[in-house]
Amino acid sequence: MKTNVISPDSTEESSGNTTKPLILVTNDDGILAPGIRALISVMAEIGNVVVVAPDKPQSAMGHAITINDTLYINKISVENAAISEYSCSGTPVDCVKLAVNEILHKKPDLCVSGVNHGSNSSINVIYSGTMSAAVEAGIEGIPAIGFSLCDSDWNADFETIKSFIRIITLQVLENGLSEGVVLNVNFPKLKEKEIKGIKICRQAKAMWMEKFDKRKTPQGKDYYWLTGEFVNQDKGEDTDEWALEHGYISVVPVQFDLTAHHTIQHLNTWNLNE
Amino acid sequence: MKTNVISPDSTEESSGNTTKPLILVTNDDGILAPGIRALISVMAEIGNVVVVAPDKPQSAMGHAITINDTLYINKISVENAAISEYSCSGTPVDCVKLAVNEILHKKPDLCVSGVNHGSNSSINVIYSGTMSAAVEAGIEGIPAIGFSLCDSDWNADFETIKSFIRIITLQVLENGLSEGVVLNVNFPKLKEKEIKGIKICRQAKAMWMEKFDKRKTPQGKDYYWLTGEFVNQDKGEDTDEWALEHGYISVVPVQFDLTAHHTIQHLNTWNLNE
Repeated sequence: MKTNVISPDSTEESSGNTTKPLILVTNDDGILAPGIRALISVMAEIGNVVVVAPDKPQSAMGHAITINDTLYINKISVENAAISEYSCSGTPVDCVKLAVNEILHKKPDLCVSGVNHGSNSSINVIYSGTMSAAVEAGIEGIPAIGFSLCDSDWNADFETIKSFIRIITLQVLENGLSEGVVLNVNFPKLKEKEIKGIKICRQAKAMWMEKFDKRKTPQGKDYYWLTGEFVNQDKGEDTDEWALEHGYISVVPVQFDLTAHHTIQHLNTWNLNE
Repeated sequence: MKTNVISPDSTEESSGNTTKPLILVTNDDGILAPGIRALISVMAEIGNVVVVAPDKPQSAMGHAITINDTLYINKISVENAAISEYSCSGTPVDCVKLAVNEILHKKPDLCVSGVNHGSNSSINVIYSGTMSAAVEAGIEGIPAIGFSLCDSDWNADFETIKSFIRIITLQVLENGLSEGVVLNVNFPKLKEKEIKGIKICRQAKAMWMEKFDKRKTPQGKDYYWLTGEFVNQDKGEDTDEWALEHGYISVVPVQFDLTAHHTIQHLNTWNLNE
């Protein structure tokens, strides 16, 4: 695979069988990551695939977008001519916006993001570029799934999860997703035969206990690396963390209406207008 | 105000009256923005203030964190010795993490973020660095409020909203906030006397219709600027957009459990394990 410096086509037509769904693939680890290559290979069996992914790693970018800088797209030559691939200089969310508006010029039938190298379960959903790309697609009314494998290794084994990615994707295409909902799918680091099944879960109440690694530059100035320890305070057996720890694939429906509706009544008792 | 290159104190003690609440102030427009200067001035009347804010604009950074780069903190000399200020090289969320772990070495009683130059109502909450800083504080168990003024001008009039910031902040300190909830406060661009009051709202169902501004570099390569038009599809009179359009300050309780609980029962009817 090589990067060309030519511009993207002015309009990307879905090639091949037009009865197949048009599937947009993106990620946050960058277009060359093994995780997205595995995801592309599964999607190519299901639909017509267009890939628009960051040209470099964009992990932990959350829902960042590029408003104070320029954006570039490069069309990439790929061996399988039925698949179109574009690398983008922006964030994962930028990739989705550019794909819909400047490459596809229409909404795809599905957007899949990942497979992320590392967990996006529980609170990680908030920091994740992979999941933010899926959420952005959801905001634009496109059914979307983020896939993540609980193994941060660049050479993690993605073969073992391909059959499950296929099952979940086909179910989303068959059933659709409720308005305002996207799926956060996490795979345990297990062999295919060790995986017990797929569980619908809620987001565990967990967090990172930060620990900054403080160092000195050669010139004597302090600087920090962000590190931390993941702490799961939630013992519920309906959570994604429980499922993953017990050998299941976790599927959490994620929404982008952040309103804490249950607190509105209480807040209306406050003295805000006196 | 000048930036020093000295390191932060190893431990930041709350100075002044120790019965006053310890208030962490941050933002996404950068530590020199008029919006945060206005917020600091209100907080200085209420509590002991420590400011940890980005050293440059970090708008639309969402919940991005810095995991692949180093982080720097600089203590800043300020005229009012009762206030400690630090600029940070990272994102708004990095600022909160560094403040709690490396500067305060404890949780403040309150974290306030802003005042943002521009709206963070409805879907903007997801892209906003201002709100992501408040959400990060919430994740760490700190009561938190994000404040935004619906005026993107650098010289917007923040004086007119100071009395309302004070009211809302005192109510949060008095009543506390439910676990897992932070407040998203937006002010209409109106004179103080024109503001009709404060309304508790839900996040409007609105979105951005992107429109990329496509240009050519002097070398002939295409590039893009992200622009767009805000579209509010939600006519509900209980939304933040309705409140702002009708002269009210909107207060939306925001949660970071993103689970779409209402869809779990339906998803359990899918054929995922057959």
